[in-house]
Amino acid sequence: MKAYKPKNRLTTQAYIDGVLNGERVILSRAITIIESSLESDRILAKEIVQAILPASGKSIRIGITGVPGVGKSTFIETFGMHLIKQGYKVAILSIDPSSQRSKGSILGDKTRMEALGQMEDAYIRPSASGDTLGGVANKTGETMLLCEAAGYDVILIETVGVGQSETAVHGMTDFFLLLMLAGAGDELQGIKKGIMEMADMVVINKADGNNIRMSEMAKRQYQNALHIFPQSESGWTPIVSTASSTKNIGIDTVWDTILEFKKLVDKNGYFNKNRNQQQIQWMYNNINEALKHLFYNSENIDKKLTALEKDIIASKISPVKAAQYIIKAFKESF
Amino acid sequence: MKAYKPKNRLTTQAYIDGVLNGERVILSRAITIIESSLESDRILAKEIVQAILPASGKSIRIGITGVPGVGKSTFIETFGMHLIKQGYKVAILSIDPSSQRSKGSILGDKTRMEALGQMEDAYIRPSASGDTLGGVANKTGETMLLCEAAGYDVILIETVGVGQSETAVHGMTDFFLLLMLAGAGDELQGIKKGIMEMADMVVINKADGNNIRMSEMAKRQYQNALHIFPQSESGWTPIVSTASSTKNIGIDTVWDTILEFKKLVDKNGYFNKNRNQQQIQWMYNNINEALKHLFYNSENIDKKLTALEKDIIASKISPVKAAQYIIKAFKESF
Repeated sequence: MKAYKPKNRLTTQAYIDGVLNGERVILSRAITIIESSLESDRILAKEIVQAILPASGKSIRIGITGVPGVGKSTFIETFGMHLIKQGYKVAILSIDPSSQRSKGSILGDKTRMEALGQMEDAYIRPSASGDTLGGVANKTGETMLLCEAAGYDVILIETVGVGQSETAVHGMTDFFLLLMLAGAGDELQGIKKGIMEMADMVVINKADGNNIRMSEMAKRQYQNALHIFPQSESGWTPIVSTASSTKNIGIDTVWDTILEFKKLVDKNGYFNKNRNQQQIQWMYNNINEALKHLFYNSENIDKKLTALEKDIIASKISPVKAAQYIIKAFKESF
Repeated sequence: MKAYKPKNRLTTQAYIDGVLNGERVILSRAITIIESSLESDRILAKEIVQAILPASGKSIRIGITGVPGVGKSTFIETFGMHLIKQGYKVAILSIDPSSQRSKGSILGDKTRMEALGQMEDAYIRPSASGDTLGGVANKTGETMLLCEAAGYDVILIETVGVGQSETAVHGMTDFFLLLMLAGAGDELQGIKKGIMEMADMVVINKADGNNIRMSEMAKRQYQNALHIFPQSESGWTPIVSTASSTKNIGIDTVWDTILEFKKLVDKNGYFNKNRNQQQIQWMYNNINEALKHLFYNSENIDKKLTALEKDIIASKISPVKAAQYIIKAFKESF
């Protein structure tokens, strides 16, 4: 059986040239190839990524996360406009493994970042859809490489999903920004444990009007909490600041802080070291995921695992023995 | 070729009966079988664990961690003696994936817990050795089951190694205790990020003499830091207290807190739920590790991975493509 191959595809070289020339339309079409699950597209995508690889990597990659309601879109809108005014080209990507509706969120993103969406120097691409976080992260990661090859200097990667997606974003960015709100003592409510520890900077958003005093209090609270953690490998001490995205207050501080961070990690060598580690880790994540895929898609595996889980809880079989038993069956199935 | 089989082994039933009767010497010999890497012993170990499984699970499992110098041994000595005075039988195990000298540390453990080592109701077993954390954790986990079947009511599992071993201990215990010292602002120095978030209780040790004021300050600092984290699934709010192991101050509070915790999680169902989840997770950890073992021990894999890592850093191949390439080679090798 011959696989279905869409007719409206350009030549491989046309995608490569278009991306390298920074042509937005071609960039978008190339990203569509990356996001496609068609076998012919997957081969094409590999060729495109492979060809633009040497032109990638020249941006600063910033991860942005925060609970729903923290004002992430408004922050990105104001922050993005600030960057464009400084002369930068900005790409905004997102990771959302929970999203199965890739088309729907385009409109959503365009609406929620109105000014930014109209700028020549901004490129907004909603989350790729996918079944696994690993798959979505791969697509966002390769989309990032394409945007870099197309000349974008700053890549903002936003988490839309909750849970593990923050770790995925942290694993592909240079700087990790956590947006927070001033609240009633339990500010981290809703933020997964461990997220705060990944932050290079915590920004208390919506710090305007009646909220200023509370925001300053929250700032001190986070500063105390962050200081109790050991210094990270980058040599950078996380910064806490307040900002108002709607009033455009404190947004310049965020960018200045990122530039300071960049200066430090360029000087101490962490920037390149971290990038290399991330690339290598990216390969190993894919290997480990492929191994799991092989196993968890082997014959009747779900039925067998469910039965073993029951036996374990009933103390009929030890967890170690259960694992040995099922791995033996897996090996024999090859 | 016939595998070497040691002569001084008892019958399988003798091990099982001895463990179930709480005979210390047989228990020790059974644990030696579990720790053995001989093929014949591994089969025997599986049979023993399988047979005692229904009699296991009836203890409270307490994980204890803290940086070197925090006074872990002295704490366990005093805490263990306190438990024995209350009528409990206590087993002390440890996880130390870095240790390759299983014989050496027996003497070490006996020396550092002098009083406890002489008690009829205390059973001290040093860390099993092993190449991988998963392997060591399996051995310690199965040793724990044996100790429970032998009638020990409280199992203390101490981390000796640093890094991932805390997560392994957390994954096999009901209550996680973090020992800390009062210090100069950066108390968490040396504690891996994320460890504090696992703690059900933080005990500031060596809170005596001139150190009392500093310890009380550290206590308040940790209380503030812990309150900023969201409540854990258990419904339990972590407790911070001070103690002096050498002066036996605050040790009773630790045990009272654990009993309070137990009461809460028995009532809200978390105790059993967590135990079941841990058992199931134990199986999946073993499966995932076995899959990695299959892959990373396949032919010439190290050479291939090193070459790919170099190509990735040189932007010659994308991480995703590199992973696909090597997984394909792995599948074909079967």
